[in-house]
Amino acid sequence: MTNNTHKTDSPVTVIGLGLMGQALAPAFLKAGHATTVWNRTAGKADHVVSQGAQLAPTVGDAVKAGGPIVVCLTDYAAVRELLGGSEVDLAGAMLVNLTSGDSAQARETARWATERGARYLDGAVMAVPPAIGTDAAVILHSGPEADFQEYEPTLAALGTVTHLGVDHGLASLYDAAGLTMMWSILNAWLQGIALLRTAGVDAATFAPFAQQMAATVAGWLPYDAEQIDKGDFATEVSTLGTHTRAMEHLIEESETAGINAELPKLIKALADRAIAAGHADLEYAVLIEEFTKPG
Amino acid sequence: MTNNTHKTDSPVTVIGLGLMGQALAPAFLKAGHATTVWNRTAGKADHVVSQGAQLAPTVGDAVKAGGPIVVCLTDYAAVRELLGGSEVDLAGAMLVNLTSGDSAQARETARWATERGARYLDGAVMAVPPAIGTDAAVILHSGPEADFQEYEPTLAALGTVTHLGVDHGLASLYDAAGLTMMWSILNAWLQGIALLRTAGVDAATFAPFAQQMAATVAGWLPYDAEQIDKGDFATEVSTLGTHTRAMEHLIEESETAGINAELPKLIKALADRAIAAGHADLEYAVLIEEFTKPG
Repeated sequence: MTNNTHKTDSPVTVIGLGLMGQALAPAFLKAGHATTVWNRTAGKADHVVSQGAQLAPTVGDAVKAGGPIVVCLTDYAAVRELLGGSEVDLAGAMLVNLTSGDSAQARETARWATERGARYLDGAVMAVPPAIGTDAAVILHSGPEADFQEYEPTLAALGTVTHLGVDHGLASLYDAAGLTMMWSILNAWLQGIALLRTAGVDAATFAPFAQQMAATVAGWLPYDAEQIDKGDFATEVSTLGTHTRAMEHLIEESETAGINAELPKLIKALADRAIAAGHADLEYAVLIEEFTKPG
Repeated sequence: MTNNTHKTDSPVTVIGLGLMGQALAPAFLKAGHATTVWNRTAGKADHVVSQGAQLAPTVGDAVKAGGPIVVCLTDYAAVRELLGGSEVDLAGAMLVNLTSGDSAQARETARWATERGARYLDGAVMAVPPAIGTDAAVILHSGPEADFQEYEPTLAALGTVTHLGVDHGLASLYDAAGLTMMWSILNAWLQGIALLRTAGVDAATFAPFAQQMAATVAGWLPYDAEQIDKGDFATEVSTLGTHTRAMEHLIEESETAGINAELPKLIKALADRAIAAGHADLEYAVLIEEFTKPG
């Protein structure tokens, strides 16, 4: 780490002032950083400028302002179009790209930036804009560890910042995996509410039960992980065959109640495929074999 | 509560000695209850008899042994076939049916038992057999509250016992809702592992991240519940439209990696339908409208 990054007034630049960028810049300002901003539509900078940010006249100037350049645009194509212009000199720049995308785009953009003489960290913001600047905002980073360590004191103004590894694709992959968990829990919760409404139970009544169930199952994951990493799914506890009989009840409940049964049917279809592959007497986690296959 | 049920040696009967019944009877014995058992194949009783259970010569005798009659068979049809025989007198019996099934079967069987002069509680065991007899085993009950209260001291030998309400269908519905949460978390976890394996990350490394994500999302449910119960999904935080763009990345990641993309596609299909219904600018929980429709 350089002395520079230890100063709380060290510089930082935010490029892109959409909903997320409008939250990032104030978090840096609040932590005392000299914050330069740039946005294609300059008017979007008014609010953060009123809070103390400096509006760079051009994106080329924004890149030269010093400190890490935090980029948050619509997509990766926009990043390369904007920063690839002839008026922009990326040589020596430290890019921290928080734009949403997939791992292939992150790795390509890392190569692209490196070819232009920039250092590059890819990031994923696992938070909604109002959470930025609080510990609840988790921001994942991947790329060279030394670059992350150098700028961590500045980036920490945004929330809980984490370095996942040197592979630039990791932030996008963890983001996708985390969001899958989020949507899956929310969908299970909605399926449960739809079922319980048929008996007059409201969501507020179901919430503590759903939370308890989520906590219980989450507690199993480290044990599950051992099985999965070893590829050993022997059980004397609960077989996939037992699970599928209960899945049948879930489909029946949903269909009889006249509610959506697509999620229950997908749950059973995946398990049925593992049973067809001869895994009826193994633990549920043997389904990893289905998830790692195209389908 | 009668004095009888306060005695730790009060009688209880277990009918059905499959994997679960073989765990239920020892838990009652361990708690000091005089435990009568019956199973169609008498040999399956050997182990619990060696632990102190009394084997009833006929199912009719088992029903007359006194105390609650805990039934755990393959399915509801088996319960009615077995207990509907001419040699079985259900008058005055207290049935606690822990057999797995759906809410319609539970309600029908409650009527059937009541017509035969029995009292009836329906239950669902949300635990694997080895957990029975520990606090980790959650056993849900529904039916008349007074019946549950009378026998709760005996049933408590099995684990954490809960009464959900008078509607006999509630135990099955909560069971189905809880299992949906379980399978959904496990599937999201497996999808995440499949994604991360493409970058050489193992399940043990992903586990704490997946657990943290599950805990975070579970923490949102009471707030979500308010929106859902009010039917008010206005947001200034995160719109369904924003979610679907990230879902697109998840599908891309999964397809590019050559892993299963069915779960990501279902997640997006449900959200796309809500957007087609004009809900792009609302909170994710507006999807309850899709879950409560057949599909």
